[in-house]
Amino acid sequence: MAVAEVSLEHLFRVFTMPEGKDSKLAQIEQHLSDNLADFLSQHVVTKVTSLEQIEQSFAEFNVPEHPEFVSEHAANLLEKLVANSVNTYSPTFIGHMTSALPYFHLSLAKLLVGLNQNLVKIETSKAFTPLERQVLGMMHELVYAQDSEFYNTYLHSANHALGAFCSGGTIANVTALWVARNKALAADGVFKGVAREGLAAGLAHYGYKKMAILSSRRGHYSLSKSVDLLGLGREQLITLDCPTQRLSPEKALAFGKQYAEQGNKILSIVGVAGTTETGHVDPLDELADVAQELGCHFHVDAAWGGATLFSSTHRNILKGIQRADSVTIDAHKQMYVPMGAGMVLFKDPNDSNAVRHHANYILRAGSKDLGATTLEGSRNGMAMMVYASLHIFGRQGYELLIDQSIEKAKIFARMIQSHPDFELITPPTLSLLTYRVNPQEVQQQVKVDPSLSPHFNEKLDKLTVYVQKQQREAGKSFVSRTRLQTQTYGEQTMTVFRVVLANPLTTEKDLQNILDEQVAIASKSQNWAELTNTD
Amino acid sequence: MAVAEVSLEHLFRVFTMPEGKDSKLAQIEQHLSDNLADFLSQHVVTKVTSLEQIEQSFAEFNVPEHPEFVSEHAANLLEKLVANSVNTYSPTFIGHMTSALPYFHLSLAKLLVGLNQNLVKIETSKAFTPLERQVLGMMHELVYAQDSEFYNTYLHSANHALGAFCSGGTIANVTALWVARNKALAADGVFKGVAREGLAAGLAHYGYKKMAILSSRRGHYSLSKSVDLLGLGREQLITLDCPTQRLSPEKALAFGKQYAEQGNKILSIVGVAGTTETGHVDPLDELADVAQELGCHFHVDAAWGGATLFSSTHRNILKGIQRADSVTIDAHKQMYVPMGAGMVLFKDPNDSNAVRHHANYILRAGSKDLGATTLEGSRNGMAMMVYASLHIFGRQGYELLIDQSIEKAKIFARMIQSHPDFELITPPTLSLLTYRVNPQEVQQQVKVDPSLSPHFNEKLDKLTVYVQKQQREAGKSFVSRTRLQTQTYGEQTMTVFRVVLANPLTTEKDLQNILDEQVAIASKSQNWAELTNTD
Repeated sequence: MAVAEVSLEHLFRVFTMPEGKDSKLAQIEQHLSDNLADFLSQHVVTKVTSLEQIEQSFAEFNVPEHPEFVSEHAANLLEKLVANSVNTYSPTFIGHMTSALPYFHLSLAKLLVGLNQNLVKIETSKAFTPLERQVLGMMHELVYAQDSEFYNTYLHSANHALGAFCSGGTIANVTALWVARNKALAADGVFKGVAREGLAAGLAHYGYKKMAILSSRRGHYSLSKSVDLLGLGREQLITLDCPTQRLSPEKALAFGKQYAEQGNKILSIVGVAGTTETGHVDPLDELADVAQELGCHFHVDAAWGGATLFSSTHRNILKGIQRADSVTIDAHKQMYVPMGAGMVLFKDPNDSNAVRHHANYILRAGSKDLGATTLEGSRNGMAMMVYASLHIFGRQGYELLIDQSIEKAKIFARMIQSHPDFELITPPTLSLLTYRVNPQEVQQQVKVDPSLSPHFNEKLDKLTVYVQKQQREAGKSFVSRTRLQTQTYGEQTMTVFRVVLANPLTTEKDLQNILDEQVAIASKSQNWAELTNTD
Repeated sequence: MAVAEVSLEHLFRVFTMPEGKDSKLAQIEQHLSDNLADFLSQHVVTKVTSLEQIEQSFAEFNVPEHPEFVSEHAANLLEKLVANSVNTYSPTFIGHMTSALPYFHLSLAKLLVGLNQNLVKIETSKAFTPLERQVLGMMHELVYAQDSEFYNTYLHSANHALGAFCSGGTIANVTALWVARNKALAADGVFKGVAREGLAAGLAHYGYKKMAILSSRRGHYSLSKSVDLLGLGREQLITLDCPTQRLSPEKALAFGKQYAEQGNKILSIVGVAGTTETGHVDPLDELADVAQELGCHFHVDAAWGGATLFSSTHRNILKGIQRADSVTIDAHKQMYVPMGAGMVLFKDPNDSNAVRHHANYILRAGSKDLGATTLEGSRNGMAMMVYASLHIFGRQGYELLIDQSIEKAKIFARMIQSHPDFELITPPTLSLLTYRVNPQEVQQQVKVDPSLSPHFNEKLDKLTVYVQKQQREAGKSFVSRTRLQTQTYGEQTMTVFRVVLANPLTTEKDLQNILDEQVAIASKSQNWAELTNTD
């Protein structure tokens, strides 16, 4: 390895001298700009490399003593890192919520680093602050549709916030529930509020034994992190059974009443608009009624599904979302923005004040410093990516993207249903669905004698896991897997393939190939032989 | 405004067709690559534009209905956003911790978005996971210097973590104190732990009335957010007086003992290594003794100062940091990485398990999914920027950068001290210092009669605020301001200029110009006239 010179002159060059058009980094940039798909297919290796092998390349634990030349390092990155990354742009990578992105984000990412603003305070962000507030305002309007007087009053008010920009959906959910907790145990003249006096004092003052968050089993893992972090305890995350994949308003109400009778308090009901596992949307309107009856906060985790509001055709699936006190939406999911663009929106612009903080040298009272009401402090200007996307796609553009994703999921569901060796487990709401391999012979036997299904399900689980892993390792395509209960199989939890059809570049042909590959893998397996040979 | 076509074909082009070499975005990129300083000086407007004026450009609250052409939007961004941003690269922007960045980050930012990995789980990050673990390992070694057996055991262990990568220092501090809280109120056979049963049950079980975090007045605002979030309450953030800008171990011990006698528990002492306001480093070694005596967690917030460990010359300023249970370091500060690269390191690799979470479809037990032990969920691969920087600078490169920043701060301190109309308030530790304008005549009168100082200080505060604002609005340079108490002036809190000398491109000439400009502004002011005309 060539060692770069250690001198101030050399270091200054790193800050002041561009790499130059022929440098390795410039070549990488050019390739990314010219043809991203080609760059990825050329550099991301699809052959199986075990994680243990990759770890060998990242085993050194001492900070390198000597500087390295930029171009040499760029070559190392290609070889060690890029080669062993995941091609999330691939139309056949349909296992997670990460998809191809529009080209303009590559350039904007460069601009963002070139500007390197810090949004915690006006002094280091200037126009980025009103821009971020505007983005939150537009998303607020999309959800809550208040009138112009409302937005003219609050959009840029130093004493209010329509939401908070976050690094992701987890921070957004935590922020929403933090606000909910501080409002539920607010100052009241005698008590100075949970934010000042703490949770134990707050529960005692209000006479609650415990305080819980209520969602369905399909609630996101960030809810579990939230109740831990906020001091409620994970046992106070009540996740109700949901064989339909949706939270039952009746069960929620019954539980909430019973819980209150025991001297406890439901802090918030969390409705999900687009569960991570199956894409289902809870009955938000009915849950808003329940929250109202229980006198608790109503949060909607629309990290995935929020963008459905852009579609006139499908926005009704989220009916009632405008009654939520707070809503989480991730722009890095169905808004095709790079990773790191979560948002939480508050119906009431005063709500953010429940978590307002000030300091002497920063976030001064009366300032418009965003850090006063966000959980995070120093942050970059990712809001610019959302701003650009909202303008370049427009509502109509997003509508088209959302509509075609949902349509594609329906087509894929029909392909699965019409194939003798597959079984659709959860049909698509939004653009997610789950299914599994299930040989025709097995399906027929179970149809005749449903009591056989537990026996087969265990074997089918193994087959699904096997196929999913083999397909992933073959590297051509990727679906994920999860474990679910459904109405059809009652108490039985089963393993299923999970697909997310958000990549606009995924074609029907891609989907057909994925099914073909799965059947090919499955039919050659030991599990298949055991399942279909029932002598 | 030209309206782009709303068709799937048009939308697909946004995903699949590069902008082209002559497009506006490509031009922006080229300018950034060729000469970043020139791009910024050409596009970032330095004339005064009030925030209210800028807000006019971001007043619309409806999502735009129609798509916009990318190039047209790029032009809009330049005009509305870039023009009204802050030139954080400028060598005369020495008021905050945001500085010029090395060129290679521009290209890497583009690569990062091109790959768009999600580090929450292996399936969407692959090599980025071991890379991030290695970065945390290197930083761990820098702080804790364990042996090779230690790192070979823990660097890539699925059941341990040497730290957590975070969007910033606030999340890092929150994570550290979350771990501390969960350890202090851990499961013990009878009690299932605060993470499961909640804070009120935990305090009751362990017999603590309250639980506090102890730091000096110079502690970062994120500590206040942390105690609120974790349910302790802000009254349980004990910030001790620190006329020397450093937390007194004697005061901390005395308070801790007294607090314990009242039936309470100190959860953690937080030592600061590089306070945000003055750059001071708490006496970490002595505070480690105090934490040991009180039987509490010891966290060091080295968000700013952690990088000093790269310097053989100066690392001794942080003596005792290796005794901390957890340490926060921000790579986007003195490691010259773009915004968004916070880290918390744990001395004990088991500590991260105090906040470990699992879920069915993700973060499965035994997996190496990073999201199981980080507060955040989906995250981008910023660790790549830290990895590249560690290699391209090497320890020796960082050492040189750190050494010259500290040297420059000392030079600036001497310039201030030798100028008749300035007063150095806090001399530099690391590369921060504070000072104020103080006319020679005033300094002489106070020297003769120190009882005059309260009278003058009030007027000097106004002068300092005035000069700081005028200088900021003139747009040539920027220093920040804060309010402090010092030993010299006892109980009096005074307003001071605060400078951070981290930009390697800042020259002595720049510093001289900043002082000259301040005197020029000051001497023409009403405040100056009042101060110097004492008839």
